[in-house]
Amino acid sequence: MNSLLPSISVLTVIYPVAIAAEAMSGALAAGRRNMDIFGVAVIAFVTALGGGTIRDLILGRFPIGWTQHPEYVYLVISAGLLTTVIAPFMHNLKRVFLVLDAMGLIAFSLIGCSVAVEMEYPTVVAIMAGMITGICGGILRDVLCNQVPVVFRRELYASVSLAVCGMFLTLRAFGVDADLNTAVSFAAGLLLRLVAIWGGWKLPTFSYQQRWE
Amino acid sequence: MNSLLPSISVLTVIYPVAIAAEAMSGALAAGRRNMDIFGVAVIAFVTALGGGTIRDLILGRFPIGWTQHPEYVYLVISAGLLTTVIAPFMHNLKRVFLVLDAMGLIAFSLIGCSVAVEMEYPTVVAIMAGMITGICGGILRDVLCNQVPVVFRRELYASVSLAVCGMFLTLRAFGVDADLNTAVSFAAGLLLRLVAIWGGWKLPTFSYQQRWE
Amino acid sequence: MNSLLPSISVLTVIYPVAIAAEAMSGALAAGRRNMDIFGVAVIAFVTALGGGTIRDLILGRFPIGWTQHPEYVYLVISAGLLTTVIAPFMHNLKRVFLVLDAMGLIAFSLIGCSVAVEMEYPTVVAIMAGMITGICGGILRDVLCNQVPVVFRRELYASVSLAVCGMFLTLRAFGVDADLNTAVSFAAGLLLRLVAIWGGWKLPTFSYQQRWE
Repeated sequence: MNSLLPSISVLTVIYPVAIAAEAMSGALAAGRRNMDIFGVAVIAFVTALGGGTIRDLILGRFPIGWTQHPEYVYLVISAGLLTTVIAPFMHNLKRVFLVLDAMGLIAFSLIGCSVAVEMEYPTVVAIMAGMITGICGGILRDVLCNQVPVVFRRELYASVSLAVCGMFLTLRAFGVDADLNTAVSFAAGLLLRLVAIWGGWKLPTFSYQQRWE
Repeated sequence: MNSLLPSISVLTVIYPVAIAAEAMSGALAAGRRNMDIFGVAVIAFVTALGGGTIRDLILGRFPIGWTQHPEYVYLVISAGLLTTVIAPFMHNLKRVFLVLDAMGLIAFSLIGCSVAVEMEYPTVVAIMAGMITGICGGILRDVLCNQVPVVFRRELYASVSLAVCGMFLTLRAFGVDADLNTAVSFAAGLLLRLVAIWGGWKLPTFSYQQRWE
Repeated sequence: MNSLLPSISVLTVIYPVAIAAEAMSGALAAGRRNMDIFGVAVIAFVTALGGGTIRDLILGRFPIGWTQHPEYVYLVISAGLLTTVIAPFMHNLKRVFLVLDAMGLIAFSLIGCSVAVEMEYPTVVAIMAGMITGICGGILRDVLCNQVPVVFRRELYASVSLAVCGMFLTLRAFGVDADLNTAVSFAAGLLLRLVAIWGGWKLPTFSYQQRWE
């Protein structure tokens, strides 16, 4: 047991909330494409658990996380289907939802980072594992809904994941206690994301329209 | 050898027919996008063997099925290329083709389900393995052809896969002989799918057009 | 050590140039979609290292190549970000760029082929491993940029990969020395690709517009 890794107990509380929030965002995206309820369930599942699946595949970590936790599968599918009922009222909950989504992004990033560190991958791979866990679910959702992933164009989102992973690994290198490190990185990341939404902060964009043909 | 699993011999007869039918559906989709014959071969391959590949990856089952069966690779690529020649006449065979496609869906689902059961994954994972095998080939085909997967919008399709997997696992839990179970589940699934096509049965759709921005 | 495999040293020189060139092609595609610089970095990474990642996953070869080579991760991300600066001048370098891209395609193909042969996969799997390494990065790039993969419609591209793999394995079967084999296959493939671009050679296209519904 490596005491510089986040205690499982801290993130275990946030994790189910996070995957439920991601599942709901997936269900709304499916609704924008007029999918049937089966499609809604699939997109909910993929959005919530797809990032962790890709991380586990790339790190060669078998069995894949959710295959050992049927309760998560039921949770995300239920959250997705529930969304089809409560969608008309969700607009009023926009702010709650954005906060839950931000919490999900950061919890996923910290978990992904920790998993790679535990497996003794190099630092850059740990950062990428955190980002893959944080953003790949949303990328899969957008690819299945046939649109360019919003994560590549939105206010600071993936960069928040990067910042959180970088902060966590830096504090860890300085020997900061894992629980404290997790709490501090989580709070800082959440603050950064919420300020970015509030201020509409975006990364500079690269436009290239020249045709070579 | 687990005698509650379908005897390999039963599905082995259907499997080559099924992957050839799926390869042909992939080739037609490639033709709708004016791809070159190389693209046709790739889409045929991915449609026929992509679902099983994703299942094997997610279950951590190496080596991946088709890498040990070059004959399947040759079969699906041949079926895809043959389609470019016989496409003008295939419209007349529409009904035959839909039946073959339905047989493929169900055979894939039963095989996927059995593989996960053999590896002692939980029940919900076995159901998902069945569905992944049944529908992911078609999803990959549609993503590569840049369209929203039809499986999320068509008459009962993925739900047939779900029903077949559920039925198979239920009968198995009651101790029904594997060959009988396979035959009964296969026939029931095929009937359900054909009736759904005939009656235009669809799942309820979820539409959500509200913009949050 | 199998002396019929290409000496690592030969391809190791070309490999970094190849992944940098692929990363740049990814960055330009991201720029056509007005992505932010984070999206540029992701697409550059996926274009350059995605093909090898998919190959390693399908061959069950863990750990995945780039996770053991952080220097490649830094290289492709740097090349992608650099592209946003030098893009206005790259049009003048079109010919250089096309040659680098062709070198990448062929180096990737030979490496992928060798990896599968080393793992003692059947010949057809070795050929597919070569093609997967050569073209899947570009396919992922196009899927993430929401367009039909150009590799399915362009002048001879994937077929060059196929030809190179076939030639390499044939010469190997005749016992040709690995370094000589690599050099000859590389040169022949490069020549074929450049002549195909120059002459606008394409594979026949399959068009199928009939609707079944």
